[in-house]
Amino acid sequence: MSKEGTAKNADLKKNRARMLISCPDQPGIVAAVSRFLHEHGANIVQSDQYTMDPEGGMFFIRIEFDLNELSRRLETLELDFEEVVARKFQMDWSISKAAEKKKLAVFVSKEDHCLLELLWQWQAGDLDAEIAMVVSNHPDLRDRVEPFGIPYHHIPVTADTKREAEEKQLELISGQADTIILARYMQIISPQFIEHYHNRIINIHHSFLPAFVGGKPYAQAYQRGVKLIGATAHYVTQELDGGPIIEQDVQRVSHRDNVENLKRIGRHIERIVLARAVSWHVEDRILTHHNKTVVFN
Amino acid sequence: MSKEGTAKNADLKKNRARMLISCPDQPGIVAAVSRFLHEHGANIVQSDQYTMDPEGGMFFIRIEFDLNELSRRLETLELDFEEVVARKFQMDWSISKAAEKKKLAVFVSKEDHCLLELLWQWQAGDLDAEIAMVVSNHPDLRDRVEPFGIPYHHIPVTADTKREAEEKQLELISGQADTIILARYMQIISPQFIEHYHNRIINIHHSFLPAFVGGKPYAQAYQRGVKLIGATAHYVTQELDGGPIIEQDVQRVSHRDNVENLKRIGRHIERIVLARAVSWHVEDRILTHHNKTVVFN
Amino acid sequence: MSKEGTAKNADLKKNRARMLISCPDQPGIVAAVSRFLHEHGANIVQSDQYTMDPEGGMFFIRIEFDLNELSRRLETLELDFEEVVARKFQMDWSISKAAEKKKLAVFVSKEDHCLLELLWQWQAGDLDAEIAMVVSNHPDLRDRVEPFGIPYHHIPVTADTKREAEEKQLELISGQADTIILARYMQIISPQFIEHYHNRIINIHHSFLPAFVGGKPYAQAYQRGVKLIGATAHYVTQELDGGPIIEQDVQRVSHRDNVENLKRIGRHIERIVLARAVSWHVEDRILTHHNKTVVFN
Amino acid sequence: MSKEGTAKNADLKKNRARMLISCPDQPGIVAAVSRFLHEHGANIVQSDQYTMDPEGGMFFIRIEFDLNELSRRLETLELDFEEVVARKFQMDWSISKAAEKKKLAVFVSKEDHCLLELLWQWQAGDLDAEIAMVVSNHPDLRDRVEPFGIPYHHIPVTADTKREAEEKQLELISGQADTIILARYMQIISPQFIEHYHNRIINIHHSFLPAFVGGKPYAQAYQRGVKLIGATAHYVTQELDGGPIIEQDVQRVSHRDNVENLKRIGRHIERIVLARAVSWHVEDRILTHHNKTVVFN
Repeated sequence: MSKEGTAKNADLKKNRARMLISCPDQPGIVAAVSRFLHEHGANIVQSDQYTMDPEGGMFFIRIEFDLNELSRRLETLELDFEEVVARKFQMDWSISKAAEKKKLAVFVSKEDHCLLELLWQWQAGDLDAEIAMVVSNHPDLRDRVEPFGIPYHHIPVTADTKREAEEKQLELISGQADTIILARYMQIISPQFIEHYHNRIINIHHSFLPAFVGGKPYAQAYQRGVKLIGATAHYVTQELDGGPIIEQDVQRVSHRDNVENLKRIGRHIERIVLARAVSWHVEDRILTHHNKTVVFN
Repeated sequence: MSKEGTAKNADLKKNRARMLISCPDQPGIVAAVSRFLHEHGANIVQSDQYTMDPEGGMFFIRIEFDLNELSRRLETLELDFEEVVARKFQMDWSISKAAEKKKLAVFVSKEDHCLLELLWQWQAGDLDAEIAMVVSNHPDLRDRVEPFGIPYHHIPVTADTKREAEEKQLELISGQADTIILARYMQIISPQFIEHYHNRIINIHHSFLPAFVGGKPYAQAYQRGVKLIGATAHYVTQELDGGPIIEQDVQRVSHRDNVENLKRIGRHIERIVLARAVSWHVEDRILTHHNKTVVFN
Repeated sequence: MSKEGTAKNADLKKNRARMLISCPDQPGIVAAVSRFLHEHGANIVQSDQYTMDPEGGMFFIRIEFDLNELSRRLETLELDFEEVVARKFQMDWSISKAAEKKKLAVFVSKEDHCLLELLWQWQAGDLDAEIAMVVSNHPDLRDRVEPFGIPYHHIPVTADTKREAEEKQLELISGQADTIILARYMQIISPQFIEHYHNRIINIHHSFLPAFVGGKPYAQAYQRGVKLIGATAHYVTQELDGGPIIEQDVQRVSHRDNVENLKRIGRHIERIVLARAVSWHVEDRILTHHNKTVVFN
Repeated sequence: MSKEGTAKNADLKKNRARMLISCPDQPGIVAAVSRFLHEHGANIVQSDQYTMDPEGGMFFIRIEFDLNELSRRLETLELDFEEVVARKFQMDWSISKAAEKKKLAVFVSKEDHCLLELLWQWQAGDLDAEIAMVVSNHPDLRDRVEPFGIPYHHIPVTADTKREAEEKQLELISGQADTIILARYMQIISPQFIEHYHNRIINIHHSFLPAFVGGKPYAQAYQRGVKLIGATAHYVTQELDGGPIIEQDVQRVSHRDNVENLKRIGRHIERIVLARAVSWHVEDRILTHHNKTVVFN
């Protein structure tokens, strides 16, 4: 969560790693992991843990640790960990280097508010990631993106060309980005595409209490006189807008807000919620289990 | 919104009236109303106005005014207003005396949190209403209510006796209460009953983003990992939980909150939201139009 | 508050005026104003009113009205209003055309977050104003500003040159901007300067509960373990950071947030609060009385 | 944080312990603690950890664990822990049984809102503590308290009798309560008294942004037109209202809220903030270091 700008920070961060583990709960997990790290010379600087339903449930932990000469020693550490600890506890686990920024491909259509919030936060040093590229099914936002020095790829999508378009997108992204942000990208992603980026595609959409079924949700919200406009950021799964929720927030509205205003407020809350979700993702703060996230923020 | 306890306040309030008007918008409404009041010696102390869609839309106004010897002069004022102003502008209007508290019948089942919040706020002088009675389809909460000196009526309801039960309820309420608060009353009110209390029955229910269809919404919310738990207070119409929304709010939750916790937080937000909605209703701050409220708070 | 982009909106807005009035309260004000407007063919589309302390207090009203051929008829209307209504009630009043955007001079030093939020909202059409220029005592932010097509004036300020610098600033602004936004401008404005722009200079600063006296407030807030970081936007008066408050908000923090994080969160809440305050100012939603604002939002 | 009402929960809880540790940070702490617990048959069900400033900083951890036959085995475990782990790492530590509820003495004067919120949450089973007694320097609230079956002790306090009064209070509390809640108790507690209950006296007070120096803060807040009213709950130290902050929150107000309303809203936010702080304290979620809390909630 910290802003990493100064040399001192960069230096601190060089040897910092983040470990995420999920596994069936049983006694001794923390003891085994912490003992392993200690014996390998790693110093735990932060740790968050959560057990979902104590009996027969799942165990989740996020550990930040420092290890001298991390780059040189990480591979060995990982091999050892798999053998000595992970296998025994049937762990699903990963370690990432804090200094290795995640690379984002931001997908957009014509609306720019979510995209711009990410670009601004990135420019201000508040988003600890690289923005590798912007991909759009429309040419409209090129002029907004290129001044930031980020490549803009226009890949048109029609009903007929969807498959080819997705192939082009995958080709572009491959090796260049590890996470995809749908920043108001108004195309449905195919199951094949989603499979490539399991829990690495983040989407944002407006949300209401209650939800409004059918088209023109803002008009419906206005007619019902809702008092809150919300947004939900989630990982994309094959169930449309049904994946694990990462973050949600709302903003208060009143009868004075017409449909245009509700949309404007919706845009505002969308950009805030998406930016938070992306920042937690790139800082390895999110684990998922079934359709639920565990967010250590 | 003010607490009315002291003699000075009571005195101030004695001559205070609240006027609510809705009508099709056209030029000259405010001029006509304010001129009328001025010429009748009334002094406007607060006024809120809203026009829904300037052209061909609806006009809403809430006026608080002081009039010397209000009690004696109100009837004449009302007759004059209907003749001189209201008819011309096709107004739907009402005037109520601030000193005449609304009388509430609170309907409950077994859960006490919403009921108790109302009783507490009433006891603290923060709810400017009388609680005329509590009506329940269960005997359970009698001991919670009677220490407050408020009658508790147990009227059992079964599928077979629903009609008779509602008749008994209506008989009890008639002349004793003008507003009904469903404070977690777990029975569906019949359309016949609702008709008697159009826009004078307030209900509270939990709300989620997104809404969860089907049973056990808290369990579903938990499984989806929602980050906000909300509540909605609305006027009861024949469409189940579909009436005009008066107030909504949310509270933040996390993966750490199990289903029990989510329910506890849900209870907390329900009591806050219901109490606000009731207090706006009893202070004549709410107008309705179709399925939408205009809340001047 | 609405976004004004389409031709239809522009057309609607062409004849829209906003009237602000403060005066000692007495019976008949609303009647007089609304009758005057009605007789001059103006149609009130929105009106907000507030009386501060009914007896012997102050009366405030904001009226939006439409008047055919506003541009041609406004001057006469104003002359008539002064004579027929305003004088009698000792009104402090103004009318502005909704179509005539306020012109802002944004003052900055080296921090860009508040400036950029204004530029972005302006670019998105969410801020209904013109940004006439950016003025800075440092050259640093020129490259951020000029791509928006807005002139950037670097006027260095030292203890010795403060007076001349302010004179240059006044000269630059004169006729070009009617409102000054101190978007983290780290210089104290002289009383002489403030006088020229009474209630037209808006400042933003961080705020804590409780306030921390002395330097390094974020470090103090960290040491005390505060749970909320806030910001306050206010009109600038001769009392440092003591002018009428326009808007405030807070964001939640925890022990996990180090001083750097607290500052980052502070920046975030500052930009939101300032943008709201500016948008209410340019939409003529703010009246002031002594050291207090009345904000009709 | 969970509601403990059902037999199943009680059973689960019987063997649940909560461990709080602070110590200077160094490598191996987590490994040592978790290994110790594992080897003693304890199963960690929740763990939160925080390191204040990685290099040369402080380490904080809260662990919830289950241990069969906890009551019988706890003493041995504690002795062993001190010897095997705590001494080596210079730990400040404690273990408490989840089933052993903290006992509260609630101090009040004449205002009842904070007291009642605690009584209500206790009655609803949402506050996992016993309320052992209410102590007041006034007789006024006796009738509010006794229906809850809780003893009410009236101990008058004057400038002359303050010392004796505190002695009587200490005598009453001794062995009966371990935590003192100042629920709007309008007397300053002496340093001698505070020493007996270090970090076990919780106070609540209103808070503003900015703070207002001098008397009548609500009147000052009104005159300055503040937009937020807040409250702060903190541990009592010898510096008046200067102890470690446990929780803070705010509620939005507007120019329409007169001084009476601001006070009413202040009462509302005070009761919410105090209730949260107390519930975190009784669930052993708070560690302190110098003048700062670490709250694992």
